Amino acid sequence: MNKNIILPLVSKIIKPLGFIKLVDISPRIIYDGNLNCDYAVAEAARVSYSSGTKKVNNDESLINYLYSNEHTTPFEMITFKFHIKAPIFVVRQWQRHRMSTYNEISGRYSIIEETFWYPEQLRKQSIINNQGSCGFIDKQKSDQLINHWKKHLQNSYKLYNHSINSGVSRELARTILPLNTYTEFYWKIDLHNLLRFIKLRNDNHAQEEIRAYASALNEIIKIYCPISVKAFENYSKNSIKLSAEEIEIIRGSKKEISSKSGNADFKKKLELLLINLKK
Amino acid sequence: MNKNIILPLVSKIIKPLGFIKLVDISPRIIYDGNLNCDYAVAEAARVSYSSGTKKVNNDESLINYLYSNEHTTPFEMITFKFHIKAPIFVVRQWQRHRMSTYNEISGRYSIIEETFWYPEQLRKQSIINNQGSCGFIDKQKSDQLINHWKKHLQNSYKLYNHSINSGVSRELARTILPLNTYTEFYWKIDLHNLLRFIKLRNDNHAQEEIRAYASALNEIIKIYCPISVKAFENYSKNSIKLSAEEIEIIRGSKKEISSKSGNADFKKKLELLLINLKK
Amino acid sequence: MNKNIILPLVSKIIKPLGFIKLVDISPRIIYDGNLNCDYAVAEAARVSYSSGTKKVNNDESLINYLYSNEHTTPFEMITFKFHIKAPIFVVRQWQRHRMSTYNEISGRYSIIEETFWYPEQLRKQSIINNQGSCGFIDKQKSDQLINHWKKHLQNSYKLYNHSINSGVSRELARTILPLNTYTEFYWKIDLHNLLRFIKLRNDNHAQEEIRAYASALNEIIKIYCPISVKAFENYSKNSIKLSAEEIEIIRGSKKEISSKSGNADFKKKLELLLINLKK
Amino acid sequence: MNKNIILPLVSKIIKPLGFIKLVDISPRIIYDGNLNCDYAVAEAARVSYSSGTKKVNNDESLINYLYSNEHTTPFEMITFKFHIKAPIFVVRQWQRHRMSTYNEISGRYSIIEETFWYPEQLRKQSIINNQGSCGFIDKQKSDQLINHWKKHLQNSYKLYNHSINSGVSRELARTILPLNTYTEFYWKIDLHNLLRFIKLRNDNHAQEEIRAYASALNEIIKIYCPISVKAFENYSKNSIKLSAEEIEIIRGSKKEISSKSGNADFKKKLELLLINLKK
Repeated sequence: MNKNIILPLVSKIIKPLGFIKLVDISPRIIYDGNLNCDYAVAEAARVSYSSGTKKVNNDESLINYLYSNEHTTPFEMITFKFHIKAPIFVVRQWQRHRMSTYNEISGRYSIIEETFWYPEQLRKQSIINNQGSCGFIDKQKSDQLINHWKKHLQNSYKLYNHSINSGVSRELARTILPLNTYTEFYWKIDLHNLLRFIKLRNDNHAQEEIRAYASALNEIIKIYCPISVKAFENYSKNSIKLSAEEIEIIRGSKKEISSKSGNADFKKKLELLLINLKK
Repeated sequence: MNKNIILPLVSKIIKPLGFIKLVDISPRIIYDGNLNCDYAVAEAARVSYSSGTKKVNNDESLINYLYSNEHTTPFEMITFKFHIKAPIFVVRQWQRHRMSTYNEISGRYSIIEETFWYPEQLRKQSIINNQGSCGFIDKQKSDQLINHWKKHLQNSYKLYNHSINSGVSRELARTILPLNTYTEFYWKIDLHNLLRFIKLRNDNHAQEEIRAYASALNEIIKIYCPISVKAFENYSKNSIKLSAEEIEIIRGSKKEISSKSGNADFKKKLELLLINLKK
Repeated sequence: MNKNIILPLVSKIIKPLGFIKLVDISPRIIYDGNLNCDYAVAEAARVSYSSGTKKVNNDESLINYLYSNEHTTPFEMITFKFHIKAPIFVVRQWQRHRMSTYNEISGRYSIIEETFWYPEQLRKQSIINNQGSCGFIDKQKSDQLINHWKKHLQNSYKLYNHSINSGVSRELARTILPLNTYTEFYWKIDLHNLLRFIKLRNDNHAQEEIRAYASALNEIIKIYCPISVKAFENYSKNSIKLSAEEIEIIRGSKKEISSKSGNADFKKKLELLLINLKK
Repeated sequence: MNKNIILPLVSKIIKPLGFIKLVDISPRIIYDGNLNCDYAVAEAARVSYSSGTKKVNNDESLINYLYSNEHTTPFEMITFKFHIKAPIFVVRQWQRHRMSTYNEISGRYSIIEETFWYPEQLRKQSIINNQGSCGFIDKQKSDQLINHWKKHLQNSYKLYNHSINSGVSRELARTILPLNTYTEFYWKIDLHNLLRFIKLRNDNHAQEEIRAYASALNEIIKIYCPISVKAFENYSKNSIKLSAEEIEIIRGSKKEISSKSGNADFKKKLELLLINLKK
């Protein structure tokens, strides 16, 4: 006998003032014997096989097969809806991901709240990675600077408030608020596109502040789709890709990587694989 | 006290051998006092208003406002998943709609079943509408032709079967099957895009065979989102658009439509509005 | 004999410091006798008609037919690429439009320049339109406030600069800059989606600052696709829609609009059409 | 001094009766010193770097960097438009690729021509690959079967023709035509999505008939974007991916692949890399 189980919806705090709340998931109901939402991936994929081929697969091996062969549409069959609070500079990166639905607080309709993001300690500009940070600003100096920041953020909000009280329209007044003002949005995305989001944003090239969200999303969806997320981690997130040129070098039919920038990456891969190339 | 209600999932037969089965809907759970899924549209829209503006709207007037002002993203927050059986020539039109997810039976994996579509009575080519039908072929002649068709469909399947039994790969053998062979697919689509599908396909320019599906979809989703579907019917499906030129003619500042093809359409609109233009 | 004409690429200044530069358009080459890019819409549509139907349409009536019947895909066949400079709060609204490609300056890679947007005179909050402005703040008071703003913007940039010079990573330092900082991006979009962008953003519900861009885009593309843009203006931008309920009221079979908020809109439509409803 | 060069547009025959014709490409104009369209990828990417970082990259190393790090949007900045003739069963697979624009011949408007696809020799069903072929049906038997097919195809068209001549509407008559009837369509797609199409369809899991098109597309675009296509071939098409589990096995920290189906794939990768795992 089948028993309907309504899945509970979890939340996570993202420090200092952000959050991710799961608002809905499709499927929300699972059945006795189907321990999680992964069954919806397998169910959609199985329509392809119909009668005629008798090969029986359990859900896990089918999902592994689909994921490793880039049959991505069945993973679009699971849908998540979240309520998220994050600083605007994070949301600006987030909204580059187009295959999903956003409904955000409008600063034209609403008075924006005085909640700003700032880090505990400021990170230093990386010299080798033009887009990244590397290490921290000296604690004392960082504290001083962050105090400047806080005062500036307060001044920003005071001026916003003063403008509103002087009758300036909300749509104009908000334009002087800084990019680390918090905002909120509803976000609906399917599992395939969410895994792609996590791949790109829970990556060491991504800015730490969005990584915190991407990493929390990874943990949340693992509760609901453990098999699909495990497949993603095995075949995508923790996999490595060897380019045609790298394959040739490992085979010994080529001497070295033609691009300088590629060399460091290739060395890391060889170390990970415990491969020693004979010179 | 809130009580969870799990929504039941309905199906419809589309004659002769097709069907539409609702497999899942998000939200699937509604709460006491929220009589239907429409609340998810309002809930997502409300994040935009947040604090600051105090205007209280009930769900219905908010949804009407959103729909009539083309604020379409909140309608993307409701998601439907269907299992559909339809002839290939219908599915070919269906899959022109790109903003949705398809998983279809693969004729490479599976033996295709001997289920073919044919009409009860053949329709005549319309003379005025180059893409449509108009009236029926004389019943007796139609029956004769349909008998030819049936024999031909049987021959098609025999040759398919014979090819398969001779060892021909499924991916090749299927290529001789006709476009009225039935196929099946899973289809996931959000409410906004589904309403657009219904608008274009449950329209008198669409082929009758896909209209039957679009009309059934309209009826199905009305059960789950009566307020949104009513807004769609009022503001979109049963609305009329008056072009800038047509407005000028009604105002008397212009004599007639510059394009011949537009004239018949305009006349119908005037009749519907009971407007008599003075000559 | 056909002569190739390479289309020149135009630009527009959007005050005070923004711009729109057309970088490329497909088709970029037009032929003698095809006076503009509209031919690419007609050319793609004509593949549908092929042989079999002999009806000859000139490009203009074909394009009018396509546009008024919502056959939108042929309009996707023309592509524009722009280089745009605009304040971040404008770009945030812009990037809600997902069916297009963005490449924006990265504040992680680059030092952001000290260019900020502010209005000549501050607008007042509208009382009837919760999301809009209405009229101006008294000139003297506005000037005072704008002076506060300018000082604040300078302070913002000083603190940004100071943070950068103290070794803070660019990805962190930029987070304190305000939403009216200018940014730049490349934008590729097809004609169908661009017309939809213009419809929604060159509208009196849109914020004046993005309207300035949408209106300039309208002017630019009219140079290249005059027939399509004229069809858009006639059938979409300057058209009006009458809902099923409004039709009934005009016909006399219903007394009044059921929603309060719809009443004002309906009154405007009646005035435009010079229709007097008998009481 | 810059000289404008208008790129010529190439075509390819796909046997027996199909074709791919390049109709337009954006950018169509290249400049002296920019030897090909790849510059448009680099140009869009460079807007991200702006001032502030001084690192100078030539186009080739920038494109390699972008491709290998999955910065995909700059590759969306090049657009291709093709006119294609292919059998319907191929087009059915083709149109699963949603991020592109299609305009196809309409069998509702047009009389469909009597052009059918059939292979020179029929392929056998593969026993190990449920979705594929393997080797050929014995030549004599294949010829016999193909003769049956041809007769059947002729009968199909005769019945279509007879139905049309009896007054049946085109939209109905066409439904009895087989899936190997040729059709034509215009297709617009950007370079990023086209490379993804080629990856999935010029692959040994894809059906040979669509591979022929994907392979021809690969050759065509290599003429216009040699650097991007070379990056694609190096980092994607001819690369291999090692899963987390496979990495562990190569490192010696795990014994074997947990899924049976993954074993054969892993063995091939090891052979390619000339890696011998000690037992």
